[in-house]
Amino acid sequence: MVNGSERWGFRCNPELKGAAAVNIRGILMQLIGSVNKDDPRPVLPLGHGDPSAFPCFRTAKVAEDAIVEAVRSAQYNSYSSTIGILQARRAVAEYLSRDLPYTLVVDDVHLTLGCNQAIQTILTALAYPGANVLLPRPGFPFYESLAASINLEVRHFDLNPKKGWEVDLENVEAIADGNTAAMVIINPGNPCGSVYTHQHLKKIAETARKLGILVIADEVYHHLTFGSNPFVPMGAFGSIVPVVTLGSISKRWVVPGWRLGWLVTTDPNGILRKLGVPSLPLPLSPLKCEWNCVVESIIDCLNMSPDPPTFIQAAIPHILQETGMDFFSKIIDIIREAADICCNRIKEVPCITCPNKPEGSMFVMAKLDLSLLEDIYDDMDFCLKLVKEESVIVLPGMAVGLKNWLRITFAIDPSALEDGFDRIKAFCQRHAKKQ
Amino acid sequence: MVNGSERWGFRCNPELKGAAAVNIRGILMQLIGSVNKDDPRPVLPLGHGDPSAFPCFRTAKVAEDAIVEAVRSAQYNSYSSTIGILQARRAVAEYLSRDLPYTLVVDDVHLTLGCNQAIQTILTALAYPGANVLLPRPGFPFYESLAASINLEVRHFDLNPKKGWEVDLENVEAIADGNTAAMVIINPGNPCGSVYTHQHLKKIAETARKLGILVIADEVYHHLTFGSNPFVPMGAFGSIVPVVTLGSISKRWVVPGWRLGWLVTTDPNGILRKLGVPSLPLPLSPLKCEWNCVVESIIDCLNMSPDPPTFIQAAIPHILQETGMDFFSKIIDIIREAADICCNRIKEVPCITCPNKPEGSMFVMAKLDLSLLEDIYDDMDFCLKLVKEESVIVLPGMAVGLKNWLRITFAIDPSALEDGFDRIKAFCQRHAKKQ
Ligand SMILES: Cc1ncc(COP(=O)(O)O)c(C=O)c1O
Ligand SMILES: Cc1ncc(COP(=O)(O)O)c(C=O)c1O
Repeated sequence: MVNGSERWGFRCNPELKGAAAVNIRGILMQLIGSVNKDDPRPVLPLGHGDPSAFPCFRTAKVAEDAIVEAVRSAQYNSYSSTIGILQARRAVAEYLSRDLPYTLVVDDVHLTLGCNQAIQTILTALAYPGANVLLPRPGFPFYESLAASINLEVRHFDLNPKKGWEVDLENVEAIADGNTAAMVIINPGNPCGSVYTHQHLKKIAETARKLGILVIADEVYHHLTFGSNPFVPMGAFGSIVPVVTLGSISKRWVVPGWRLGWLVTTDPNGILRKLGVPSLPLPLSPLKCEWNCVVESIIDCLNMSPDPPTFIQAAIPHILQETGMDFFSKIIDIIREAADICCNRIKEVPCITCPNKPEGSMFVMAKLDLSLLEDIYDDMDFCLKLVKEESVIVLPGMAVGLKNWLRITFAIDPSALEDGFDRIKAFCQRHAKKQ
Repeated sequence: MVNGSERWGFRCNPELKGAAAVNIRGILMQLIGSVNKDDPRPVLPLGHGDPSAFPCFRTAKVAEDAIVEAVRSAQYNSYSSTIGILQARRAVAEYLSRDLPYTLVVDDVHLTLGCNQAIQTILTALAYPGANVLLPRPGFPFYESLAASINLEVRHFDLNPKKGWEVDLENVEAIADGNTAAMVIINPGNPCGSVYTHQHLKKIAETARKLGILVIADEVYHHLTFGSNPFVPMGAFGSIVPVVTLGSISKRWVVPGWRLGWLVTTDPNGILRKLGVPSLPLPLSPLKCEWNCVVESIIDCLNMSPDPPTFIQAAIPHILQETGMDFFSKIIDIIREAADICCNRIKEVPCITCPNKPEGSMFVMAKLDLSLLEDIYDDMDFCLKLVKEESVIVLPGMAVGLKNWLRITFAIDPSALEDGFDRIKAFCQRHAKKQ
C-alpha cells in the first residue's frame, strides 16, 4: 500500500461539469462581476426573475403571518413525511382544483423545494437509460443542466415568434420517438412572456396523446397574466393526455427564497398510477429499462431528496386560502405597467425589436439587430459591454437557447425600469453604426 | 407513428428502485402501519431520532425569534446564492472554529438542507465511475440508499462492540483500494451512541492519510454527549488528513424540520481546493474519470440542488451566537437521564443486552438473544410483534446493518420511556421460552 499522503488528489464526478456549463445564475454572476465599481449609479437588474427585493413587490402580509404562526406554534419542528404534510397537500389540491374541470385529491400532490425540485424530480423519475425529453427553445436552461447531470437526452422543439411563441407541433412530432418520455411546456412563458390559448393547449394535448408521451406543464408563473389571454392550466386537458403540473408560490407571492413548490398529477384517468404495460409492441431498447408506475417513481425519487421545511409546509393552507385578490391585483397592475413601459421603450431603440408584446410572466424576448451596431460581436458581448458602461444587467439570449436575442425582465420597480431603458438607449446610440 | 393513447405506460428510472429498498423511514412506516388500532394506549416512538414533538424538547426561544425576525424583515424573500448567504456561512465558520485548533473561513462553509443534503452532496461530488466509499456497519442507511441512487459502490467496515464501537481500522485497510475516495465516520454515533476519544480519531486520521483517502465526518450529533468522553471534532485532525465535516442544527437545537445544515471543508492545508494531480501513479481505471478539485465539484453539485430557504439561512447567525448554555444543558440533562433509564431498564429484560452504555447521540444498540424467546423469528419479527401487541416502536437492527440487534431511541420524554420499557418487559416475558 502506497503512502497516501504523497498522492493527495481526488477524482470527482465528471457529469457535474457538463451540467454546470450553461446556467443563468453563472452568466448573471459573470455580468455582475463586470460592473464598473466606479459607476456611482445603482445596478439595474433586468436580468433575473426575482423582483422580491423591490419594496413594491413585498409579499402579502397574510403569507408572512402564516409562517410566523407556524414557527411560534412549535408544532412543526419535526421531520416531514416524504411527499409533504397532509394539510398542505390538501390545500394545494383545493387551490389548483379551482381552475380545473375536475377535482384533485391529496394523493395527486407532492410538495417540493420550489418548482426547481419539482423539475428535478419528474426528470429523474422518467430517466430510464435511453430515454429522451422534448424541451422548448427558447426555454429555461435548468432543464438542460439537470438532464445533463442525470444523463437524460434532451431534444429541442421550437417556439414560433411569428405565432406568439406557440409550440411548433410539427417539429415536436418530427423529433419524438419510442424513447420519448415527455414534452415540457412553460406557460405563462419564460423567457417569452407568452400565454397560450385554450385552443393551442388542446392541440398540444392531442399531439402528446398521439405520440403517447406525457406533458410536463411548468406553471410556475400561473396567474401572472395581464394581457388578453387568461391563464388556462394544462391540467384542464388531463383527460386527453396525462399531465404533470409543476408550480410554486415563488412567483405569484414573490417569495422565491421560501422554496415551496409542488409536483401534481393532473391526470383524471389515473394513467400515471397504473403500472405501465404497453399494449402495443414498442421499439426494443437494448438497454436495461423498467416499466413502472410514474407516481411510484416520483415518490422513490422524493424519498432520496430533501423536503421543504415542515413549518413552511404548515403555512401553506393559510397562504393559499387567505391571500386576498387585492394583493394579486396590485402585483399584476405593477407588472402590466412595467410590461407597457418595456414595450414602448424598446420601440425607441432601433437595434432591438420585440415581435410579441408579453402577456404573462416577467420577461420578454427582444431581437438584437447587430447590423445596426458598430462594435458589438454578439448578444453576450452586448450584455457585457452594457453592464460595464451602464450598470444594467440583461440576459443574453444564448443563455435561454436563442443567440443574438435578449431576455429582458420587466418585473422590477417601474421607475427603475425607465431608468434602465434610458441607459440602454444611451448605450445603443453610442454604439450605433454611423451611416 | 402509432397512436400513443393505445399504449399508455411509462418506463421509469430503474436506479430509484434499488435506492428505496432499505430505508429507516420505510421500515418505521411499516411498523406504524401495524399498530393495533384497538389499543387505547399511546404509541411510544422509540424508533426514530426526532424528539421534537415532546414539549420538554422544545427548541430555544431565541431560535424561534430569529426565524420570525428574518421573515418579518422582508429582506430575505429572494433566491439565495448556491452555497448560502454570506453572513450565515460566516456564522457557521465561527461556530465550528470554537472547537478547532485553527480558524475556518467563509469559503470553507457550504449551507445545505440539513445534514442529509450535505451527505448527498459530498457523495455525488466524489462519485466518479468506478469509485467506492467506505461506510461503517452498523451505520446510517441513508448513505447506502444515496450511493445506490448514484451508482457509487459502497464497502463496509465494522464497528467493534467490544471496544466501544470503535472503527476496526485493520478492516478499513483491508477493504480500501486505489478507487476508494473516502471513509465515513459518524461521531457521536448513530446507531451506537458512541463518542470517540481524541486518540481513536487521531488513529482514524492516520489510517486515512496512509490510504490517501479523505474522511467524511458526520457530526450531526455534535455536542450531544453526556458521558465521560467529550465531543472532539474530526476536523481537529485536518492537518493530518483532509476532512469534510457534515452537520446541522437538527439535533442540537431539536429542529430537524427546519432543514438547515452544512458541508464544511476542515482542511487547513487546502488540499481539497487543489486540482488533484497524483504524484504517484495510481491503479489505472479503464473508465472515464476526471481529476478535479473537490471543492469545485461540491459547488457544481450544489448548483444543481435546492437551497435552504433564504430567511432560515438569515436566522442562522442569531441561532448560533445567541442560544444560551442553559438551553443546551437542559436538553443534555434530559437525554442523560433517559440514557440512564434505558440502560437500567434493559438489564431487567433478559433477552436484550447492551454491550456499551451510550455516551452521545440519541440511540443505543441492544443485542437480541433469540434463544430465550419462544416464537420470535428475528429482529424484524420482534419489532412487528412488539408494535402489534404493545404499541411500542423500536427499530430492527437489520435497518442499520446488524441483524438481530435493536436500535432503541432513548431521546424521548423520560416518563414515556419508562412506560415503553414496562411494555417491552411485559412483551418479552410473554414470549419467553418456558424452561
Ligand atoms: C420556467 C421556470 N421554471 C421553474 C423555475 C423555478 O421556480 P422556483 O423558484 O419555484 O424553484 C423558474 C424560475 O425562474 C422558471 O422561470
Ligand atoms: C448519522 C446521521 N446523519 C445525518 C442525519 C440527517 O440529519 P438532518 O436532519 O440534519 O438532515 C441523521 C438523522 O437522523 C443521522 O442520524
